Amino acid sequence: MGGDNAPEAVLDGLEKVAERHPKARILLVGDEVRLGALLSRRPGAARICSLRHAPDAVPGDMKPTAALRMRQSSMRIAIDAVAAGEAAGVVSAGNTGALMALGKIVVKTLPEIDRPALAAIGPSARGDVVLLDLGANVTCDPRNLVEFAVMGDAFARVVLGLPEPSIGLLNVGSEELKGDDRVRQAAEMLRDSVLAANFHGFVEGHDITAGTVDVVVTDGFTGNIALKTGEGAFKLMGGLLKQVFTSSLLAKLGYLLAKPALERLRDFMDPRRYNGAVLIGLNGVVVKSHGGTDGVGFAHAVDVAMDMVKHRFNQRIREKLATLPPKGQALEASAGEAGPAISGADLG
Amino acid sequence: MGGDNAPEAVLDGLEKVAERHPKARILLVGDEVRLGALLSRRPGAARICSLRHAPDAVPGDMKPTAALRMRQSSMRIAIDAVAAGEAAGVVSAGNTGALMALGKIVVKTLPEIDRPALAAIGPSARGDVVLLDLGANVTCDPRNLVEFAVMGDAFARVVLGLPEPSIGLLNVGSEELKGDDRVRQAAEMLRDSVLAANFHGFVEGHDITAGTVDVVVTDGFTGNIALKTGEGAFKLMGGLLKQVFTSSLLAKLGYLLAKPALERLRDFMDPRRYNGAVLIGLNGVVVKSHGGTDGVGFAHAVDVAMDMVKHRFNQRIREKLATLPPKGQALEASAGEAGPAISGADLG
Repeated sequence: MGGDNAPEAVLDGLEKVAERHPKARILLVGDEVRLGALLSRRPGAARICSLRHAPDAVPGDMKPTAALRMRQSSMRIAIDAVAAGEAAGVVSAGNTGALMALGKIVVKTLPEIDRPALAAIGPSARGDVVLLDLGANVTCDPRNLVEFAVMGDAFARVVLGLPEPSIGLLNVGSEELKGDDRVRQAAEMLRDSVLAANFHGFVEGHDITAGTVDVVVTDGFTGNIALKTGEGAFKLMGGLLKQVFTSSLLAKLGYLLAKPALERLRDFMDPRRYNGAVLIGLNGVVVKSHGGTDGVGFAHAVDVAMDMVKHRFNQRIREKLATLPPKGQALEASAGEAGPAISGADLG
Repeated sequence: MGGDNAPEAVLDGLEKVAERHPKARILLVGDEVRLGALLSRRPGAARICSLRHAPDAVPGDMKPTAALRMRQSSMRIAIDAVAAGEAAGVVSAGNTGALMALGKIVVKTLPEIDRPALAAIGPSARGDVVLLDLGANVTCDPRNLVEFAVMGDAFARVVLGLPEPSIGLLNVGSEELKGDDRVRQAAEMLRDSVLAANFHGFVEGHDITAGTVDVVVTDGFTGNIALKTGEGAFKLMGGLLKQVFTSSLLAKLGYLLAKPALERLRDFMDPRRYNGAVLIGLNGVVVKSHGGTDGVGFAHAVDVAMDMVKHRFNQRIREKLATLPPKGQALEASAGEAGPAISGADLG
């Protein structure tokens, strides 16, 4: 029931899911009257869905703490089904904060990790790239960053199908001495970890879209801002291009001639292709679809959840997390937070 | 003597500076033989420049601490001239870390502020935007962020000519409760400060290129990554557009028809227009030109320095900084650093 175009966009998405995954079983949770009417016009979705009524829905602007108290919301009932083992995962286009809070408290964090993280995929010049954390944790210690690397590695294997994803730690420069103690300690821990062979070292902001590595690891504050800054830059360019191609008759004609190629570019950059941020590190799969997406985007978010379940995502990360040093050990190492007064961030 | 195309790009830039600012007086520091030969072929630059020999030059990959020990480098001699009051400011395309370190130690920080910051201008859908800190301080407390806001405000007035620039604090969401203690405390301080009327509150990554505010304030870690992520996104789009317009004969023809409009877009996005990151908060003007720029870009960096000197940038920030509460007071308020476990960063 969540998102700007709910529940229609969700049902449109499920109609596509039914084509792609005819054996999927979907538990559809929400207002049974509205959902029933929509299902009756979508035979594919109707075939794979079973409907469960939820009298309430979490509003988009509700605080996570309030959403936690709402026991009969569609989000809560869907997440309860994951916690009970009845569903392998949940996909929602609703309130992000509420989904994260319910995920952590109801589905619960894996015992091997400190904090779940939000991960998503974006475009680069050399293929898709995984970026995490996107905002689940505004402050992180080195141990958290190492756990994110483990989870990002598994995500790239499972969702992007990469056999040996390379991993970079986001920093203000690529040399070993750059950044604050936190990232330097995380880098040291990664060099000593089971991920050492695939750890590329520090990467910078421009490396994300350059595709320097397959997985970019950072704290939730920086990751959220990097994600949205990149999206904003694409949006500005898109808007300016639109202006270019409507600025004169010749430009309009030029657009028509280049249209097939420009449409391939548009498809490549289509945010719906990258829809589905995943809250990883829980005892179940929790996927957040963008609230403004349509059926195509929502179906993509379901694909991500399906990949994670089919390829035993959680089992993979648990195996790798078990090889890290015990939690407390690494946490102690992060006591000193203050960076040097002269950081020498490289601007080129 | 610094930068990828030095000293030619610098001299090409000064030839343009001579046209735009015929009354400017430039102290040109570096290898007198090489510079003398280049000046002899550039009558404009020769007219406004006086040459001072420096036997050494700071290599691009030298550590700031090593650059500080190099007493006869062109960078050092130029900065010494600022510290001595002989020059009002310095522009360099050389080693960023060395320039920042020399700036802080030789030119020295203004007594009113804790830490200088690196600021620059970028494009947005609604005009140019100031972003700081871009990496001078990888860790910041709330007081530092407030000082950055004061400096960014003055920079927008002086370099962009805005009478009342609006100021935003970069965060993972725009609601008051988002983010960590650090940004929330800085926001509270700004609401109580002389900047209160122009303080817009929190902004998100996509607000930078949307032009939601004129000045975007953040710590040096996040700012450096936001800057480079945005640059990377523009670069990816530029590369993809190039592919589009060379992908077929029709697309090439389309490009030719739309060429005048596309060239206006290219000019608008031209990084040379935004060249000149400024280390603000020192007893003199210190401008860092991009190392890879050409004469057009270098001349722009000189323009930025000129604007700052002409419009008495430092006096403006000192007046406003004097209205902030004393330093110690604000620093104490920032003791609690840890954010809440559930941040509820908004992904839409």
